[in-house]
Amino acid sequence: MAQKFAKRSEDYSKWYNELVYRADLAEHSDVRGCMVIKPYGYAIWEKMRDILDAKFKETGHSNAYFPLFIPKSYLSKEASHVDGFAKECAVVTHYRLKNAEDGSGVVVDPEAKLEEELIVRPTSETIIWNSYKNWIQSYRDLPILINQWANVVRWEMRTRLFLRTAEFLWQEGHTAHATRQEAIAEAEQMLEVYADFAENYMAMPVVKGLKSPSERFAGADETYCIEAMMQDGKALQAGTSHFLGQNFAKAFDVKFTDKEGKQDFVWATSWGVSTRLMGALIMTHSDDEGLVLPPALAPIQVAIVPIYKSQEDLDAISLKVAELNGKLRVKGISVKFDDDDQKRPGWKFAEYEAKGVPVRVAIGPRDLAEGKAEVARRDTKEKSSVSWDGIEDYIENLLEEIQTSLFERAAKFREENIRKVDSYDEFKKVIEQEGGFILAHWDGTEETEEKVKADTQATIRCIPLEMPKEEGKCMVTGKPSAGRVIFAKAY
Amino acid sequence: MAQKFAKRSEDYSKWYNELVYRADLAEHSDVRGCMVIKPYGYAIWEKMRDILDAKFKETGHSNAYFPLFIPKSYLSKEASHVDGFAKECAVVTHYRLKNAEDGSGVVVDPEAKLEEELIVRPTSETIIWNSYKNWIQSYRDLPILINQWANVVRWEMRTRLFLRTAEFLWQEGHTAHATRQEAIAEAEQMLEVYADFAENYMAMPVVKGLKSPSERFAGADETYCIEAMMQDGKALQAGTSHFLGQNFAKAFDVKFTDKEGKQDFVWATSWGVSTRLMGALIMTHSDDEGLVLPPALAPIQVAIVPIYKSQEDLDAISLKVAELNGKLRVKGISVKFDDDDQKRPGWKFAEYEAKGVPVRVAIGPRDLAEGKAEVARRDTKEKSSVSWDGIEDYIENLLEEIQTSLFERAAKFREENIRKVDSYDEFKKVIEQEGGFILAHWDGTEETEEKVKADTQATIRCIPLEMPKEEGKCMVTGKPSAGRVIFAKAY
Repeated sequence: MAQKFAKRSEDYSKWYNELVYRADLAEHSDVRGCMVIKPYGYAIWEKMRDILDAKFKETGHSNAYFPLFIPKSYLSKEASHVDGFAKECAVVTHYRLKNAEDGSGVVVDPEAKLEEELIVRPTSETIIWNSYKNWIQSYRDLPILINQWANVVRWEMRTRLFLRTAEFLWQEGHTAHATRQEAIAEAEQMLEVYADFAENYMAMPVVKGLKSPSERFAGADETYCIEAMMQDGKALQAGTSHFLGQNFAKAFDVKFTDKEGKQDFVWATSWGVSTRLMGALIMTHSDDEGLVLPPALAPIQVAIVPIYKSQEDLDAISLKVAELNGKLRVKGISVKFDDDDQKRPGWKFAEYEAKGVPVRVAIGPRDLAEGKAEVARRDTKEKSSVSWDGIEDYIENLLEEIQTSLFERAAKFREENIRKVDSYDEFKKVIEQEGGFILAHWDGTEETEEKVKADTQATIRCIPLEMPKEEGKCMVTGKPSAGRVIFAKAY
Repeated sequence: MAQKFAKRSEDYSKWYNELVYRADLAEHSDVRGCMVIKPYGYAIWEKMRDILDAKFKETGHSNAYFPLFIPKSYLSKEASHVDGFAKECAVVTHYRLKNAEDGSGVVVDPEAKLEEELIVRPTSETIIWNSYKNWIQSYRDLPILINQWANVVRWEMRTRLFLRTAEFLWQEGHTAHATRQEAIAEAEQMLEVYADFAENYMAMPVVKGLKSPSERFAGADETYCIEAMMQDGKALQAGTSHFLGQNFAKAFDVKFTDKEGKQDFVWATSWGVSTRLMGALIMTHSDDEGLVLPPALAPIQVAIVPIYKSQEDLDAISLKVAELNGKLRVKGISVKFDDDDQKRPGWKFAEYEAKGVPVRVAIGPRDLAEGKAEVARRDTKEKSSVSWDGIEDYIENLLEEIQTSLFERAAKFREENIRKVDSYDEFKKVIEQEGGFILAHWDGTEETEEKVKADTQATIRCIPLEMPKEEGKCMVTGKPSAGRVIFAKAY
């Protein structure tokens, strides 16, 4: 680990890329835009998935699985939907290869051309609503509360590991309801689920809000989102929940008969989070030494490193560690005892630091003799000499403290980087020099939004749901504004 | 449920298709060859996945994720591999749609043609070994023990729900080893994991064996398999584990330096099971009334149906059920109390029967007065009046008994349908009239295998690993045979 890595303060982007490799989370594959999620990265994603999945089930949802391929004509049925996705989709045109006549390998068999091209799903509203059409006749068939864990493909030209990749993993909830109110309540409920997950597991504070019309999901009447602030002050959209109105029901002719025998189109929502959350997690907490993980999402919560010269020392330490191991496991704490003889303690320390293991315990013969161990926390790098007696409780409390303290640190950083701005001149200066989130008045028009973006690269991240409404005048045009919105540069 | 369904004895194939719909497991989508796995079917698959995943982790494997797309040239690097998969693969040729000039919708943008076509993975050996090349330098980097849960696509012309679909879900393990022996031990270990899962969770007896050379995985030196017998006597390959030798290491130039400093190619295995197991599960246990599930894989293990006329009755029953519910949940038993007022008890009984819920409890006011409940088991349809006192233990034992008894019933059926045959005339008669597995001598040649297939449609399912070796003469050619192999018609 003698290699020199980029610091956040010098080159944030390079720091991020190097960190993803250094912590062994993921790497670029040879397939343009597609990543390989390595075992350690995938273990974190699995923890995220399992926690979210349990929350979806608690709120009444079931998982199901729909086809990877979407007939081209389906995509076109919802007008704004196709506009949003047609320009970046992978198209399957043939279903067979054959040997090249010149013996140079295999080529596409021109005789195996599909009658209708298939799109690799960029999102599944169309293929799912085409199924719902057959599932829904009456109000008794509603609501349908389904989620899918899947891979999706959006052909991105500029990719970054986790943050923007052509293929990514995600979950997409797709629900069908008898009333507008019920669908809105569902979209809002799932926003709460995402916010709870972001704050209480990822230790990442988020602002809940609504997207401006131009930033809405293609096919939605309203897009709810959670927005987080990264350490460079830029915003990252961490999850979205869409109220789709009756748009997809109309596109796929999905009607139901209500209790009074009247027919109406079905109301819809969809909501999703993706492996992008991995990028958000990394950029919220990590430092120049590597990844910092909140204990709730750490595949290894405690790494124990023995420090020894003789086999006798190691045996004595191992015996003591086995005891601690058992006590921690009972508490549901995941532990790795690293007695790999090929690597030196210093190498191991650096390795667990790079991988963001929240707590490291080191034990040498002297610690053993004194009935103590050295406990180091990853986030603050503080070390303490802790008595073996009750060390399991000490570690349990420490993990809780780290979880809380990571959230508080991130919330404090965000507080320090949210600024109210009233004039456009000041806005341009602040966004250039300070970054962060800017609370400013906006006249509600797309023209103003676009002007701000063209001038400063900042976009409206959201119209916040939980801030006091304050009327004012648009910082650009002076026209009336119903309340401040959040502007920021974004990932 | 007044509808009349096909019986197994009349039309096994129709019975299967209807059952998949009746139990609400899956349906055909409008996308050729792709299925929709519905929530109830997916819940069973989730149980399978979670159990298998835990077993993979116990045996030292980690999950990871590799790209969906494989560059065409990668597929060609291993000669027999490309022969095996080129004829049935989905090919991505373009990455963008555009609006048709005549306003008729969207069309493929000819300017967005990929330089090299991408294949939607039919299996991931090539893309994974292309990564392993960068991960492996020395013996210290070995073994690599990775599994992936993913969707794969093989363009099948004749599809059947779960059994043969263009897209299916599966897991694929891909391991890399320093020695031939270690790789063989890994392939054999995973075969044991699959056999254990099939027998102890699916309650489905399997024969462990080796595939004949012509039935091997494309690119394998040896394919291990588990073969199960369906109720129509046909065989179903339920899982395979491949010893890949150094074939993929050579194709992708993956070498390592051993402890002595010598370079050698890396040894490989791959192993997988898929949603095909759902088909095997259905066809092993189900009957003319619907699905029969082993308790270990049942999303709902106990359905409780109240029988009542007044709200007062229902309230009293609900109170009693809540108590039972709590006791069962403590035991880890999943319960559904179905107090849906819209449906009659008879309808519910038929519904849970069709869905294969192992145990049904019915409670009416008289049962309540007598301190009893009616407990019915799905597999044998036996009903008992059981005292409330200790009913939770009764149900727990009953679930275990059902699990065991389903396995025993299937094992008995298989025993009755395995026959030793010595002459080819008898073979032809037995395979035509009785079906099942036939143990016969084979001379080890592909010609004989092909002749038998052409004459009878039966193939060699496997060379069994655990049967006493008995030398003999090939039933077709009279040439020497090292031991009997299993012939059967297969799914």
